[in-house]
Amino acid sequence: MIRVTVWGENVHETTNEIVSGIYPEGMHTQIARLIGADDGIITRTATLQQPEHGLGGDVLEKSDVLVWWGHAAHGEVSDAVVDRVVDRVWQGMGLIVLHSAHFSKVFKRLMGAPCALKWREAGERERVWVVNPGHPIARDVPPSFVLENEEMYGEPFSVPEPMETVFVSWYQGGEVFRSGLTWKRGAGKIFYFQPGHETYPTYFDANVGKVLRNAVHWAHNPAAHLRDPSDAPNVPVGEAPEPISERGPKLHKEGEKGFR
Amino acid sequence: MIRVTVWGENVHETTNEIVSGIYPEGMHTQIARLIGADDGIITRTATLQQPEHGLGGDVLEKSDVLVWWGHAAHGEVSDAVVDRVVDRVWQGMGLIVLHSAHFSKVFKRLMGAPCALKWREAGERERVWVVNPGHPIARDVPPSFVLENEEMYGEPFSVPEPMETVFVSWYQGGEVFRSGLTWKRGAGKIFYFQPGHETYPTYFDANVGKVLRNAVHWAHNPAAHLRDPSDAPNVPVGEAPEPISERGPKLHKEGEKGFR
Amino acid sequence: MIRVTVWGENVHETTNEIVSGIYPEGMHTQIARLIGADDGIITRTATLQQPEHGLGGDVLEKSDVLVWWGHAAHGEVSDAVVDRVVDRVWQGMGLIVLHSAHFSKVFKRLMGAPCALKWREAGERERVWVVNPGHPIARDVPPSFVLENEEMYGEPFSVPEPMETVFVSWYQGGEVFRSGLTWKRGAGKIFYFQPGHETYPTYFDANVGKVLRNAVHWAHNPAAHLRDPSDAPNVPVGEAPEPISERGPKLHKEGEKGFR
Amino acid sequence: MIRVTVWGENVHETTNEIVSGIYPEGMHTQIARLIGADDGIITRTATLQQPEHGLGGDVLEKSDVLVWWGHAAHGEVSDAVVDRVVDRVWQGMGLIVLHSAHFSKVFKRLMGAPCALKWREAGERERVWVVNPGHPIARDVPPSFVLENEEMYGEPFSVPEPMETVFVSWYQGGEVFRSGLTWKRGAGKIFYFQPGHETYPTYFDANVGKVLRNAVHWAHNPAAHLRDPSDAPNVPVGEAPEPISERGPKLHKEGEKGFR
Repeated sequence: MIRVTVWGENVHETTNEIVSGIYPEGMHTQIARLIGADDGIITRTATLQQPEHGLGGDVLEKSDVLVWWGHAAHGEVSDAVVDRVVDRVWQGMGLIVLHSAHFSKVFKRLMGAPCALKWREAGERERVWVVNPGHPIARDVPPSFVLENEEMYGEPFSVPEPMETVFVSWYQGGEVFRSGLTWKRGAGKIFYFQPGHETYPTYFDANVGKVLRNAVHWAHNPAAHLRDPSDAPNVPVGEAPEPISERGPKLHKEGEKGFR
Repeated sequence: MIRVTVWGENVHETTNEIVSGIYPEGMHTQIARLIGADDGIITRTATLQQPEHGLGGDVLEKSDVLVWWGHAAHGEVSDAVVDRVVDRVWQGMGLIVLHSAHFSKVFKRLMGAPCALKWREAGERERVWVVNPGHPIARDVPPSFVLENEEMYGEPFSVPEPMETVFVSWYQGGEVFRSGLTWKRGAGKIFYFQPGHETYPTYFDANVGKVLRNAVHWAHNPAAHLRDPSDAPNVPVGEAPEPISERGPKLHKEGEKGFR
Repeated sequence: MIRVTVWGENVHETTNEIVSGIYPEGMHTQIARLIGADDGIITRTATLQQPEHGLGGDVLEKSDVLVWWGHAAHGEVSDAVVDRVVDRVWQGMGLIVLHSAHFSKVFKRLMGAPCALKWREAGERERVWVVNPGHPIARDVPPSFVLENEEMYGEPFSVPEPMETVFVSWYQGGEVFRSGLTWKRGAGKIFYFQPGHETYPTYFDANVGKVLRNAVHWAHNPAAHLRDPSDAPNVPVGEAPEPISERGPKLHKEGEKGFR
Repeated sequence: MIRVTVWGENVHETTNEIVSGIYPEGMHTQIARLIGADDGIITRTATLQQPEHGLGGDVLEKSDVLVWWGHAAHGEVSDAVVDRVVDRVWQGMGLIVLHSAHFSKVFKRLMGAPCALKWREAGERERVWVVNPGHPIARDVPPSFVLENEEMYGEPFSVPEPMETVFVSWYQGGEVFRSGLTWKRGAGKIFYFQPGHETYPTYFDANVGKVLRNAVHWAHNPAAHLRDPSDAPNVPVGEAPEPISERGPKLHKEGEKGFR
């Protein structure tokens, strides 16, 4: 059973009539619903407005995959929560980053890169093309599918070279975008997926749903979670795998911790 | 002409007799000297103790490659300076990260990963092996070379999968380490190199010097620097490469900036 | 259920007393046994001496993962069988390449690289280190494990930069080797694993068994197999996703096939 | 001085009026001319019809970068020449593969992958977008440029995941293609570039010229060429970097060569 937490910023859903008209229960609810129609997955949601943005207690500990949608309020996400999400990814939690979350603190922290792009909100046609048909995230996805109204995101998308490029999108207005990309950080797998502007019903699209479900399965790392990924342990001379003697000058005293 | 700035923390050189005995003018001075014996390179140094850590004004703007050594005082490096270094890497400045700087703020920010490892300070033998003999950083470096006394750094080294692995090290005590790794972030090339513990005369070693000079040449990106790597420009409908008409609901008004 | 075929060259087992003493039923039999102690996997074997090297009929079609061990007789493997194995990998069959099979036709064809290395047969100690502890192939494998007698394989290992480096080995004689590497070709996942010299009982080692079982699970691509991975279909003008008119001069007549 | 050899198949130039009308001296001549307008580069050409396809003697030895255009006659290129080109790339020669040469023997051998794609010859508009603006191959190339008439190449392009994606193309008919990709094999750098259908004047385009010149500079590996990239030397026990004694059973006698 893969435990998925869908995090939604939940701002435009309460302040913008168009968005609340499409997503009356919030985008996070609909994204969870779209993902949830699959055996072997259970979903919960969390939002910015909840205490600790809904990610307190053992929520992250009990999340195998976290899905993140944000746009207007990236800056309101507390750095403490960001630190915990990032650490949990390093431990092995999968992370699926959607659309405007390319500028979320969480994604920028994990990428170490600007994560910038070009954009245009014109309701134009987007064609999402599979460029890696053997990839698990593209499983049973047709060679291409259309989103009749989407926001254009254009290259250059200033992210680190991905582990694999799964989708590339064509836009009616003439641009292209690497719309499905994967990375790993520590034991955590990360997938960025471009579609999902809040003024269009993208998260009701069956192909988008298939991609997200596939991505959840792909991002789930069933291997035991790494404890303390930032730990840098000293290996005492007496515990060296091969017998050696200490020699030469030394900075640290016996048993001293390393600098951070 | 490649303009290199060697940044040194310069702490143990003034507080530890062993270190000051080896590096009486500071490690940064000796690293710059070791690199500097090459046509086409000019070096300067900067240290933690200087105003803005020696990286104020147009120093970064006029640095093609920055070399970073730090250990005891990672936490004292100001976040504002870190932000500027990171931004300058994204623009295209090369970055060479040495030894204990694996835990520097600058490196961790660019990697988005824990950057942790195992360590042992026993003055043991390290053999640095070239695993990518056609790589420019390995140019004229022998198949392997010995550092008779080095600090052991052991795997797992929790960095993102590199663009290329150039060196892997063997330690007398039984460990191994991927000791020369490359990445790119934005337009900036990054090289991490393991040797360089402050209680040993590593930065007087001719092979280490060859590696660092090669790395400076490799990290130098002569292409024009990217301006505003984090800029995410709107492309108005009227400026779309292909003629399109606006349709569907919209979040942003004409000329409005995107959310950050 | 993952269907695994273990292919063994089966030459030294019948011509060399040391090898037949360790592996009286052939290395392939013991490798299959070592892998097979796991739910969800069924194994069969195939050898060079069988018709079509045991890979005729629908054997490949019904293999989800192929394990390949060869050494003395790489040149005797028929090019027709190599072509079919390579094509099947592109379709999505996993491939696990063991030890001296670094020079097998199958591996060299898929890598497009020399796949050379240094070697020494001295029965020296090898320590296999996990460098990517969150990787599925390293699941439940200890941070390092010892093979008291192995053949040394030394860098440079002239393969393409891997997708991920999972293991790096330390040798008593002073060398290192990237001993566990992954790639993808088409829809097929490939894992190379260094241990397995025929004069030592490596394929009785529990940790080696764990690695191979993990690798089988990792290499298995449950997504539907790609049909005709080398097919390059024409998309007629009338079937273009967006309506276009043909214009300009043309080389091919309507319905003509492309050049190969 | 970078020594570039432009190899052209030179078939349609002599058999098809459209092609000979655009390229009366052969495509290879015009490609060489387009590249040649740059200090520091000297070009020569070679064609299929010449003895050893113009690549005999020391031509390859004296080529720093080889540019390859072929389409109708991939099958006529002799395997012996392919072997020598591939070996020379491993040694460090750069290789630039153009358009329909995605199906050349040389490229397929180096990729180890099907290298297939979709295609349509309709003279439609192609927009080439820079996705990696800091890459040397994109230096001084505008954010996008138009080729008013090109052959459509569509994804999936079944090549190994590249080292870096430099360009992605948009087509009028609705497809996309990763049109500029890089890899390394041995010491050799490889760049594939999509534009260049023989019935259009693509190799007179100034932006295409800029890309090719940049690619020549990027692909040139000034490091000393690797000798015998396929050599797998034995390291005798007496020459092990660390003193070891031989132990355990052995397959090879002293001084014996390894199996191939």
